[in-house]
Amino acid sequence: MGEPTNNEDEENNHSEDDDNTTLNFQTKFVPWSEMEIQNELNPRSLLQHKNGKRQSIIVIASLIDKIPNLAGLARTCEIFSAEKLVLPHMNVVEMEEFKSISVSAEHWIPVEACPPTELAQYLSQKRQEGYTIVGLEQTSTSVMLPDYEFPERCCICLGNEKEGMPPELLSLMDTCVEIPQLGVLRSLNVHVSASIMIYRYTEQFLRRK
Amino acid sequence: MGEPTNNEDEENNHSEDDDNTTLNFQTKFVPWSEMEIQNELNPRSLLQHKNGKRQSIIVIASLIDKIPNLAGLARTCEIFSAEKLVLPHMNVVEMEEFKSISVSAEHWIPVEACPPTELAQYLSQKRQEGYTIVGLEQTSTSVMLPDYEFPERCCICLGNEKEGMPPELLSLMDTCVEIPQLGVLRSLNVHVSASIMIYRYTEQFLRRK
Repeated sequence: MGEPTNNEDEENNHSEDDDNTTLNFQTKFVPWSEMEIQNELNPRSLLQHKNGKRQSIIVIASLIDKIPNLAGLARTCEIFSAEKLVLPHMNVVEMEEFKSISVSAEHWIPVEACPPTELAQYLSQKRQEGYTIVGLEQTSTSVMLPDYEFPERCCICLGNEKEGMPPELLSLMDTCVEIPQLGVLRSLNVHVSASIMIYRYTEQFLRRK
Repeated sequence: MGEPTNNEDEENNHSEDDDNTTLNFQTKFVPWSEMEIQNELNPRSLLQHKNGKRQSIIVIASLIDKIPNLAGLARTCEIFSAEKLVLPHMNVVEMEEFKSISVSAEHWIPVEACPPTELAQYLSQKRQEGYTIVGLEQTSTSVMLPDYEFPERCCICLGNEKEGMPPELLSLMDTCVEIPQLGVLRSLNVHVSASIMIYRYTEQFLRRK
């Protein structure tokens, strides 16, 4: 039997990372796994650092309001080794509610802030850097996820929990992708939707290797 | 522009379903979408009832402790039109915390209860009915999700948030499937993991149609 999986919300499972709470999170955070530190306590981190590199997928959560969704996204992004998670503002990661759900993921994944008011400019800059901007949204022209081939460098832009993607931002997406839904309810949770997309991206690139 | 997606936790978005709170949830619940009722208020439900049928995937959450995970699973199972969600006990669906997160999903998806102590017997019965029992767990012999071909009739058995799958249940799985993880943290949230598996099942059968 291997390690148990799916351990959720281990609020009391404080690791050595907790010593870092005095760091200034307002600056861009460099996770241990990218530092030149021999970290024998975290062999997987060492392995990741030496042999692996992050996937070129940036998850943009600037429009997300709820802290549990943001914290869950930090955990999922870390586990799939996304390049970066973009939060609406950096003080999110100092909130107790965030920390209890993220289980320290923010220490291992680069996070940066982009408020909604600066998102259009941020997307434009990322496009200039060679990223494709993929909106997770149901539109009249959106592509179904099973049919979508992700470009290697891409930004996944998530809509707001209630309002979805604002119309003025929709026009800034290179493409919109939606998840096929068969039921009565209108939509999946945004953290779940994003996780499915990040998994799909990961699967696609694992297959190509 | 289509409908916004990813609407999360609409606690105040009470629908007409709220009138049903006096129903006895201890009995097996028959959702509206399976009743012989012309329901003009819910055209998608009508469509689903007339033209579609549920997917033959049963999600077994008997070992899950946390209400937000169970409620989130109800929502995800409904959206992917799973055959059934199995909860540890039926009074879960009467809890306010459950209702606020499930956004009434339990009214649209068949739910039933199986306590952990009866799970072995339940799995044995489902196997006799022709279902393959798939454990979502990392083991020395588990198959990676991208490589796994789901049988049409299957039960996805989820482990506990902290302890994972108990050893005595592991031997009852026909197979164990794990999600490839690239990061430092040990494991994904169980609701997220299950959602990724249910999506993968859905995608596979959408492709075959």
